Formats: sequence, C-alpha cells, structure tokens
Amino acid sequence: MTDVLSRLRAALGDRVDASETARQAARADKSGHAAAGTPLAVVHAASVADVQQTLRIASETGTPVVPRGAGTGLAGGANTGAGEISLSLRAMDRILEVRADDLLAVVEPGILNGDLNDALAAHGLWWAPDPASRAISTVGGNIATGAGGLLCAKYGVVRDAVLGLDVVLADGRLLHLGHRSVKGVTGLDLTSLFIGSEGVLGVVVGATLKLRRLVPGQVHTLTATFPDVRTAAAASAAVTAAGIQPSIMELMDATCLAAVHRLLDLPAADPHAAQLTIQTDGAASAAEAAAIADVLRAHGGTVQVSADRDEGERLLQIRRSMHPAMETLGTTLIEDVSVPRSRLAEMFDEIARVEREHGVVIPTVAHAGDGNLHPNFIFDGPEVPAAIWDAADDLFHAALRLGGTLTGEHGIGVLKRRWLTDELGDDQWRLQRQIKDVFDPQGILNPGKVFAP
Amino acid sequence: MTDVLSRLRAALGDRVDASETARQAARADKSGHAAAGTPLAVVHAASVADVQQTLRIASETGTPVVPRGAGTGLAGGANTGAGEISLSLRAMDRILEVRADDLLAVVEPGILNGDLNDALAAHGLWWAPDPASRAISTVGGNIATGAGGLLCAKYGVVRDAVLGLDVVLADGRLLHLGHRSVKGVTGLDLTSLFIGSEGVLGVVVGATLKLRRLVPGQVHTLTATFPDVRTAAAASAAVTAAGIQPSIMELMDATCLAAVHRLLDLPAADPHAAQLTIQTDGAASAAEAAAIADVLRAHGGTVQVSADRDEGERLLQIRRSMHPAMETLGTTLIEDVSVPRSRLAEMFDEIARVEREHGVVIPTVAHAGDGNLHPNFIFDGPEVPAAIWDAADDLFHAALRLGGTLTGEHGIGVLKRRWLTDELGDDQWRLQRQIKDVFDPQGILNPGKVFAP
Repeated sequence: MTDVLSRLRAALGDRVDASETARQAARADKSGHAAAGTPLAVVHAASVADVQQTLRIASETGTPVVPRGAGTGLAGGANTGAGEISLSLRAMDRILEVRADDLLAVVEPGILNGDLNDALAAHGLWWAPDPASRAISTVGGNIATGAGGLLCAKYGVVRDAVLGLDVVLADGRLLHLGHRSVKGVTGLDLTSLFIGSEGVLGVVVGATLKLRRLVPGQVHTLTATFPDVRTAAAASAAVTAAGIQPSIMELMDATCLAAVHRLLDLPAADPHAAQLTIQTDGAASAAEAAAIADVLRAHGGTVQVSADRDEGERLLQIRRSMHPAMETLGTTLIEDVSVPRSRLAEMFDEIARVEREHGVVIPTVAHAGDGNLHPNFIFDGPEVPAAIWDAADDLFHAALRLGGTLTGEHGIGVLKRRWLTDELGDDQWRLQRQIKDVFDPQGILNPGKVFAP
Repeated sequence: MTDVLSRLRAALGDRVDASETARQAARADKSGHAAAGTPLAVVHAASVADVQQTLRIASETGTPVVPRGAGTGLAGGANTGAGEISLSLRAMDRILEVRADDLLAVVEPGILNGDLNDALAAHGLWWAPDPASRAISTVGGNIATGAGGLLCAKYGVVRDAVLGLDVVLADGRLLHLGHRSVKGVTGLDLTSLFIGSEGVLGVVVGATLKLRRLVPGQVHTLTATFPDVRTAAAASAAVTAAGIQPSIMELMDATCLAAVHRLLDLPAADPHAAQLTIQTDGAASAAEAAAIADVLRAHGGTVQVSADRDEGERLLQIRRSMHPAMETLGTTLIEDVSVPRSRLAEMFDEIARVEREHGVVIPTVAHAGDGNLHPNFIFDGPEVPAAIWDAADDLFHAALRLGGTLTGEHGIGVLKRRWLTDELGDDQWRLQRQIKDVFDPQGILNPGKVFAP
C-alpha cells in the first residue's frame, strides 16, 4: 500500500491527494451510501497521461481503481473503499473542439453538463442529454451511467448523442473508439458498450459528442394539476398516445411538490394535488401546447400555459430542485425504475400498494414523457434499513412485471447489483461478466460494482 | 457432413433446402462477390425454435453457420461457402406487436423494411432507418449491418431506433437483450453491441423497435444542379453549416445520374452536372426549403422546389435506383466510406485523385446530409481485379486521413476485413476479437467475416 502511494506520488506529484478530507469525500456519492473503509488516495488527473500513469501503477500492483466525476451518482458507482484508488476526472474539464459544421464537440470528461451547454449556446448548439443534476454533474458521469434526463423522449438518450470515446484500459493503454462522422459501422460498437458501463470496462478520458442546433422558435410551458397522482400519470400517457411529442413532461406527486415548495420558499401547493410540467418547443410549439392542454383537460387536469421562456425555466426549476428537497426530509434512497409509457399509471398503483403493504411513504417524481420514475424512500441514519430494501425489492419486481427495467438512468452501482440477474437472467449476466473480464482481466476497475462479487 | 445434414433434416424437415439452386444462391449477396464452394444447405427458419435447433446441431457438430436475411448485403457478410450452413431468417417476417402508445413494435427479423413501414403507416407510425434498398432488404439485415440510409442526419442511425433484441447464441440459448422502455441502463448495452455485428456474435430472431409518429405537414423536395460534383458537395456542406436540417440530402455525380436516367427511361441529364436532391419535412418544411434554396443558389446551384409529395417520391426514386443502374454498367464494387460533413468536398477531391492516379472511373453517390459516400468501382467479370482493390485501398486511406471511417452502413463483411486494423488499431481489433470469442468460443458464427482469419 505504501508502495502504491509512493509510486503514485513519484509519478503524479501533488495530483495525488491522500488527505483525510479527500479520502473521506471519495467514499460516497449523492446516494448517501458510503463504501466501507477509506481509499488509499484520490488522484486528480489533469491529463490523459495522468490517467494512463495511474492505471499502469494500479495494474502493476493489482490495486483497484474507481473512476469518479463530480460524485453526483445515485447508485454508489463511484464510491471508493479501503485499498482502492479514487481516480477523479473532474479536473479534466476542457472543451477541445467545437464544430458547428460537423455538429460535434470533443470534450474532456470532467466538464459539467451545464457548463458545456452554456459554452455551446454561444455557437447556437447544444448537447441534448440533460440530467436534472446538470448544474453539478459531469459529461463523463453522464456517459458512464447513461444518465438521460428530462428530454429523452423527444431528443434521445445519451447513447444517441455520443459519436466516439477515448478510453484508457486497465493496463494504461489508450484506445480511440467510434468516429467523427454521423455514420460508422466499422467492427463492433464499443462506444455504445462503454456508455452506461459505470467504470467497469475502462476510464473515459475524452468524448466526441453529437450536437444539435438550438431549437428555434417559442417554448411553451404547461402546468397541470390533478386530484391524484394516478390521474396525472394516465393523463401523461394519454398525451403520448395522442401522438403529440413534448420536449419535457415531468410528473411530481403531492409530497414532492410540498417539499420543493418549502425548500424554494414558494407558496404552499395543494396538499393532495399531483402536477405535470410540460414543455413544447420548435416550429409547432404553440399548436402542440394547445393540443396537449386539450388532452390534459379531458383527463381531469387544471391547466395553465405560458409562452414565456423565463417563466418556463422557473417552473422547471421546481422539478430540478427535487433531489435537494428530498434531502431535507431525511436520508433518501432515490430509485429509478422505468416502464413502458402505457404502464405508467399501473406503476403508480404498484407504488401505492407497496406503500400500503410495507407501511412506508414513497414520494415519487417521474419523467412521464419516457416512463422513468424516481420513487424516493426516506429514512433516518446513513444506512438503508432492511425494511426499506424489502419495499424497494417489491417495487423493482413490480416494474419488471410491467415490462420495465430496474434503472432508467442512474445505473446499478453497488445499490442495485443484487437485482441484476432478476432483469438480465443468469445467462446474460455471465456473458456481461465475461466481457468485463476481456477488458479488465485482473479485475481492478471498479470492482464489486454492477456485477456482484 | 452427411451427419449434419441428416440431423438438420430430422429436426427441421422440409425447412432444410439442399437443392443446388438454393445452395448456389446462398454463396453471394448483392456485392457480387461469392464464397468459395457451396454451403451444405439453406435452413429456412420459421420460428425461434428452428434457429435454436439449427445452432444446437451446428455447435454440437462444429459446423459454421452464416445468418442471412434477403441477401442484399454489399460486403459479402452473408456469403456462405463450403461446409457451412446458410441460416435464412427471411421467412420469419411477422409483426408481433405494434404499440402506438409506447411508440414501439416487436417484429421478426425477416420482414422487409418497406413492408414494415407500409404496415406501420396504418397506425400513423414509422421506423426511421431507411436504406435505399428498403423495398428488398430486411429489418434483421438492417440491424445486423447498422444499415442507416437516407434519413440518418435528421432521424438517427439504426442503433438510435432499437430498444431491444432477442438473440440466439452459438449454442442455441435464447437471450432477451434491452428493454421496452425509452430508457434503460441495466448492465452493459448488449443491444447496441449486436447492432452492426454482422452475425458474428449471435443470430437476431426478434427486435423491439423504437418508432416515430409520421411527421405531419408538407414535404418539400429540392433538386439542384451544379457544374461539377465538388461544387455540389461544398453546397451540401454549406447547408449543414448554415444550421438547417433537411430530412434527406442526396448527391449524385454525372455518371450516376446518366446511368439512372437510362435505366428509368428518363430524358438524358446534363452530361457534366452533379445533382443534389433534398427534402424538408415537419412544421417548418416550407421555410427550411426556402432557406436551403438560398444557400444552394449562393453556392452556384440551379434550384427547383416542389411541394408535391408524389413528385418528391418520384425524384427520390432516381436516387434509390442507383444500385440497379450501376449493375447495368458491369460488375460493381460499391464502397461506403463516411467522413465528417465538413470534409465532403475534400473527399471528392480524393476520389478525383484516385481516378487520375489509378486510371479508373468511380461514379459516386453520397448521403451528403451525413457525409456517407458510395463510390462505385465498375469492372468486368465476377472477381474484383487487383488494380481495383489498389484504387479502393487508396480511397479508404484517404477517408481515414480525413477523419472518416471505412464503412458508414454496409459493414466489413469479407470485402473490407483486411483494412479493419487500419481503422481500429491492433489493440482494439484484439479486444473486439476477444468479445467475439466470449459469444462464440467455438468460432462457428459467420467465421472469417469482419475479423480476418
């Protein structure tokens, strides 16, 4: 261990941080869950060469390495424990290239999602993946988890927005995956394989991102309140079924709304009402907003429409403040199941059943436009109690029964690995594990994450 | 060999076709290239169980299996030779489910791309991947090659339009990959890994496709002629650089235009002019068409605009007839390089250089909207002469120097495998090969394709 640390220091100097503060901070992410023990050190990589050096030393000494962005993950994927190196990419935050004519940008992984889009806006461009955490989460973290966000139904998921990746393998070799052209099918699609791979295959040190032009025209924002969350869910599904594609369609239940209103010092919301916040954009924005308002009213909603962009951003800020608002209620286990959109109301029925049967309250928000729900389990203390896991287990299996998945965008990390075979099946689990072994035969990359030991 | 055939017949009866006609037909695809020798038999699978049976017998006897759709590939990926089984999925052509509310369809792989979209249109839906061969190529072949087509710049590539795949592994086991929800990041993304994998990992027996609503509103079609192909290429790049996104932007050089006009009995085109055919759709279609017309005229184009859908389809039919038109000129090696859109004019300079230096004529069409070029090498006789391969080699390396790729949508097959490491590098080639081995440890799935022996 001393040897590893001294080798890291000899190679990387003061980019190796073995302070107690840094080591403690690297144990946890935003899930609240923390690794057992504290890591050897945090390496603040400033270059691709730094990452390669770190991995060469790690592979030569058999030391586990846990890649980390801004630490905003919600599944414990970047948590680093005893005997491990936390490899932070946060300082690698440069935009290396922006090409409006090719609709691409080449960036380092540590740049924040929000900062990237601020910089791209000056070119009339944006990168569509838009996690609610965009102000604090990195592009690399977004890619490592396949983090999705609010705009996926209309503008695609992360894997639709990445053309190529530069990755460093466990032994320090640098690979360039993918391409700079719109199309490219040379060999196997390792770029897509890396997206959502949560640091178990290699370390992403650069990304060639597929950009879009900023959408011209007006943005319309609808807010609609409903007597209960099931009605709101059914109304959102009816919007999709009616053939209208909003850019954003977010659902918040009454508990969530109340918590956010308290956090932001807004007037108290109706204590029972669930709310949809919906945006339309592009050339048909006004017509689509009007059509959506009709559907929502027909499904029992009280609807308001705004054509003011700033007002729209303010209304969405309520949704984006969900995670800090939940943190005010206690420790939070934020779940992340996703179901086909037609099953959204049924999934809320299942959540209500789990609440009843397990005697818990599960405040829930949903990216209703794409069927991705974030049920929140609130409890006291740092560790998830067994009773909460029992309720979560029930909820996960309900999502799978509805044709859904365990995780829409947060990833498996440590918190959901015990359910992985429930979704994948044993055969697929073993195949995936063997692919991991191809990339990382020593098993030093983020060990124990995704695939249970 | 007799044993394999008798076991196949015992298990699959008259779905095993060992006639000389069937075996000869399975040797080649639309590339013109044919495998050495003739396969043992063609199995016309009618069900998932048939595919599993075939692969069980194949793995137990160590017999190579080559999956095949409609045989319209252009890289020899489905060519089947001596001692091999040709496994045709063409008869598995059912649409199992269409869900307008979830914007998905579940289909068997043998359905033709055109037939699928005809059926979906009745629901107001479509599947975006749109190869020029859509009338004769299958969805499974589209997925196996990542075939792309005309609409990719605006509506995405194949991997953006597939949610899940059912695949049969080399040993006959059936796996369900992916999900039915918009989002899903559980474990590694094996669905994307299979897209474009050309039958070397497993056999796709079902696909859950991500659909779109038919785009409402008018379609505008522009045709623009230019004094030469480089000017046309520069004009098309200027359209993208100007921030306008057409749904289709196709380029044909003078030789291609002349050949198609002869094939379709149309009046002779200008013998030197190159042509762009461009479509806009959606709510801003008219405004976008007008803006594009301005850009094209500023770049030396003579432009006509039509707002008539049927006229637009007729104009596009000229582009879609390119492959049969080339076949009238001789044997054709259709290449498929792709470059960043800003480099399209430079790629045409390179093609002109290759023509000069190698003394060949290379009629070329391009999906100019996404930078994917199809240079055609024409020759006599069934085999590509060495001089043509020398010219192609020169052209491939030019594309790579411009930041492009060997193949935008046709795949590597047998015809391009000797250039694979030029693009991937040795390290990545070996990793990809090891992944292939994880799925197919015996090496019975499409052996010799993609990865050179």
